[in-house]
Amino acid sequence: MTQRPSRGFDGNFPGTRKVYLDGRQTGVRVPFREISLAGRRRLRLYDTSGPWTDHRCRLNVRTGLPPLRLPWIEARGDTVAVQHRATDCPHAHFSHPIRRARTGAAVTQLAYARRGLVTPEMEFAALRENGGRPPITPDHVRREIAAGRAILPANINHPESEPMLIGRRFRVKINANLGNSAVASSIEEEVEKMRWATLWGADTVMDLSTGSQIRATREWILRNAPVPVGTVPIYEALRRAGGEPADLTWELYREVLIEQSEQGVDYFTIHAGVLRRTLPLVRRRRLGIVSRGGAILATWCQAHRRENFLYTHFRDICEILRAYDVAFSLGDGLRPGCIADANDEAQFAELETLGRLTRIAWSLDCQVMIEGPGHVPLNLIAENMALERKFCHDAPFYTLGPLVTDVAPAYDHITSAIGGALIAAHGCAMLCYVTPKEHLGLPNRDDVKAGVIAHKIAAHAADLARGFPGARDWDDAMSAARGTFRWEDQFRLALDPATARRYHDEALPAARAKSARYCSMCGPAFCSMKLSRKVCRQS
Amino acid sequence: MTQRPSRGFDGNFPGTRKVYLDGRQTGVRVPFREISLAGRRRLRLYDTSGPWTDHRCRLNVRTGLPPLRLPWIEARGDTVAVQHRATDCPHAHFSHPIRRARTGAAVTQLAYARRGLVTPEMEFAALRENGGRPPITPDHVRREIAAGRAILPANINHPESEPMLIGRRFRVKINANLGNSAVASSIEEEVEKMRWATLWGADTVMDLSTGSQIRATREWILRNAPVPVGTVPIYEALRRAGGEPADLTWELYREVLIEQSEQGVDYFTIHAGVLRRTLPLVRRRRLGIVSRGGAILATWCQAHRRENFLYTHFRDICEILRAYDVAFSLGDGLRPGCIADANDEAQFAELETLGRLTRIAWSLDCQVMIEGPGHVPLNLIAENMALERKFCHDAPFYTLGPLVTDVAPAYDHITSAIGGALIAAHGCAMLCYVTPKEHLGLPNRDDVKAGVIAHKIAAHAADLARGFPGARDWDDAMSAARGTFRWEDQFRLALDPATARRYHDEALPAARAKSARYCSMCGPAFCSMKLSRKVCRQS
Repeated sequence: MTQRPSRGFDGNFPGTRKVYLDGRQTGVRVPFREISLAGRRRLRLYDTSGPWTDHRCRLNVRTGLPPLRLPWIEARGDTVAVQHRATDCPHAHFSHPIRRARTGAAVTQLAYARRGLVTPEMEFAALRENGGRPPITPDHVRREIAAGRAILPANINHPESEPMLIGRRFRVKINANLGNSAVASSIEEEVEKMRWATLWGADTVMDLSTGSQIRATREWILRNAPVPVGTVPIYEALRRAGGEPADLTWELYREVLIEQSEQGVDYFTIHAGVLRRTLPLVRRRRLGIVSRGGAILATWCQAHRRENFLYTHFRDICEILRAYDVAFSLGDGLRPGCIADANDEAQFAELETLGRLTRIAWSLDCQVMIEGPGHVPLNLIAENMALERKFCHDAPFYTLGPLVTDVAPAYDHITSAIGGALIAAHGCAMLCYVTPKEHLGLPNRDDVKAGVIAHKIAAHAADLARGFPGARDWDDAMSAARGTFRWEDQFRLALDPATARRYHDEALPAARAKSARYCSMCGPAFCSMKLSRKVCRQS
Repeated sequence: MTQRPSRGFDGNFPGTRKVYLDGRQTGVRVPFREISLAGRRRLRLYDTSGPWTDHRCRLNVRTGLPPLRLPWIEARGDTVAVQHRATDCPHAHFSHPIRRARTGAAVTQLAYARRGLVTPEMEFAALRENGGRPPITPDHVRREIAAGRAILPANINHPESEPMLIGRRFRVKINANLGNSAVASSIEEEVEKMRWATLWGADTVMDLSTGSQIRATREWILRNAPVPVGTVPIYEALRRAGGEPADLTWELYREVLIEQSEQGVDYFTIHAGVLRRTLPLVRRRRLGIVSRGGAILATWCQAHRRENFLYTHFRDICEILRAYDVAFSLGDGLRPGCIADANDEAQFAELETLGRLTRIAWSLDCQVMIEGPGHVPLNLIAENMALERKFCHDAPFYTLGPLVTDVAPAYDHITSAIGGALIAAHGCAMLCYVTPKEHLGLPNRDDVKAGVIAHKIAAHAADLARGFPGARDWDDAMSAARGTFRWEDQFRLALDPATARRYHDEALPAARAKSARYCSMCGPAFCSMKLSRKVCRQS
């Protein structure tokens, strides 16, 4: 492996450069954010921001990111180009053709892993986790994927995406939800939010658009996203059905699945576990069904007095997803929406169903993760993780929060980070962020940043708790900088350097304060660090 | 018990009035914040803001709050007035005299509880916890205090304070640190911060001033504080010693203890567990001693090659504290200051010492709580609580955070709320808040609010996890309001109504949106709540 540094890094990250680690396989070139510290020290951090932060890349949102994975996909020879990309995006020039699997083939990372193949994607992701150091080797990654304990979401039609892993034995990941609603936001805003979210550390994004221009918004996001993109296809299907859940059909939904697979969506939330017989359980609840997808499908089931068509057509769905390597994110349509409804019969009945569906998906070589709640008090969080592992055979768990109280609208990024940190410490693989606007409105740019940072804290805290190799290096570097009053290094190492510096400046704006052996919290005479260093020298 | 409502409530709390519950004993009149909701529903919340939010009270910071507890203290007849309050506070008129115990008497709530006396303070605190409903009766409170499992910090010279409990079987409390440093802040700012912190929910405040006018700042805070006030007396002692730890003496410290006891400080952080023999353990650490008090005392021990004078004079300290009912907050001078140092030998050696000191303090009828860390990864938090209970015989635990990672300066209110929620769910009785300025500078008004709210969330989440009777009523009221689109009620029930409303207004400013059956997050066609209500009606 060799390293090639880049000159700069976007955002507010001082003393940082982008470096790459080259793997053995052609084109495997893994980005890191490297922070330079005093005394020629360096710290390398996992980097989700993609080529946007490499100033040597000349990029344009109208042409999109380079298709990093295209040569790997083509080299496998198991796909065919089926058509050129439609240019239904005004002012854009997105070019590479649409591919799908040769008839009957499964082109999923799970299929390759089971065959013993370490793909370039797997090697990339292994290096990315921890520089390729044991135990996170490429073959370890392959084994985790083959066992279903991890997924590597990588639609063959989203070659711009940098491979990453979602699984209990890897770093905890976070997802940021984007997408317009009928009430707010434009395409440009959503693309900008996606870049912003990945700059601060979002490992995947979900485009949850329900407003106008769903397809064009998604195309812009996909062509510019260096991270996997997820969607909830039932939203677009409902839109095409004129907004009337009863008018949804399998044929319409199937069409949406294929179109989104061809666009390059990396994982689909599919609420196939919402069954007719579990709906009466929901009546006992304080807050019924709070999942949009869950509510739509429950409405359909009742209108037609038939079983959920996502459940009855589950194998058909698998056949589609395996032809593009779209991963399942099996949706928790009956997740609890308030503390009172947590861990109830409806929730766990659905979780058992998701476990059965996981087996079916795996039998057809599809990658699967399981979605989880929601609103759960701290004392019931461990049970969620334990039952998920039991019912769903160790498939990765992907939770929304959980929020540990209902009383803090405007601060739900914090209630969610509390529950998220705990469930991730217990083994949850990915946390869906919640922003301060949750329960109140669509998040703006500041909300996206606040949500990402709160959940980045939760995810990293869980990495520490789980003893992920090397996770503590970052904390140790910060502590060393604190102990020696290297203020500039503390800012560089902070999750949000500009804000940390601004807070320090508020009381001590003078440049020399940045080399002072105290801060405004205690002042010079009461600095424990200063006294402590003397004590340690003498004892 | 009768109720007497007040007309208004300060701050940003719409639809709220202050109500009182009268107890059986004279003058026991317990405040609550009552929120009016649609359909004549009402919810009553624990209220820390004191008379400042009762508009019928004519109050002035120059004369201070009325001395609520003075008649109770006088009626016990075990104290004497020793002198009039010195008027060393310019422009202030603080009047009631200074008292202390008759010679040899212990005037502590612990002494009364052991004698089987249910004081008005205990009845007040019992009603305050949960309206006096079982199991939180006045006699239950008495038993918890008698067993040392709870404290009721109530210096006889701080009669303005409204009685409250710190203990594992009561609501989790939070403390807000105030106080100037040599670098920043004035008296007015600190008094204003105290009122601001209690408005948002701080149950106690600590005045950690180290700058000029320490004594006057404290006097202003005490005379205006409706909550117990804590200090770290070694700070003032060090100041009087000219800032040189080696020049500290027992006599000087003793003088400070008596003066602060006479002023009315309700609890003292005393770092009596920092022993000479544990100092070598600190050398192995990455970050040494991060407690200011701990570092000062370690420096003194080394300079004199003698044991910590707080340890050798511990019984003398008890004799002083019991004469005013100042509670011990046994300080963790060797708390870990970074993730790498968590749960080490130095930390737990000190905790064992604190357990021995607890027994001594109890034998002299002094109330005790134990301070805890600091910086601890999620997986090591439970051990902290378990060892505290074991070593310190179930004395209440009072922790700073713990912060679950070191990498998030500017967001440490979140890292602290994560660790705080978890340790409180395990039984910690009070959380010391951390603000976004932690590690960077002295908090301003916004930081104080952010810190209080983050830790209020953590404390309430722990109350839910511990199944505190009635704690979920608040969450259930919010969920009911959500399920029926009562937006105004959701704002009223929010921890921070004005911010919740502002966030909702950003996308949907129109007044009619406040009665709409959707929000800007999903828009009208995709509202799960709306669909769910139909499903529930039909299934």
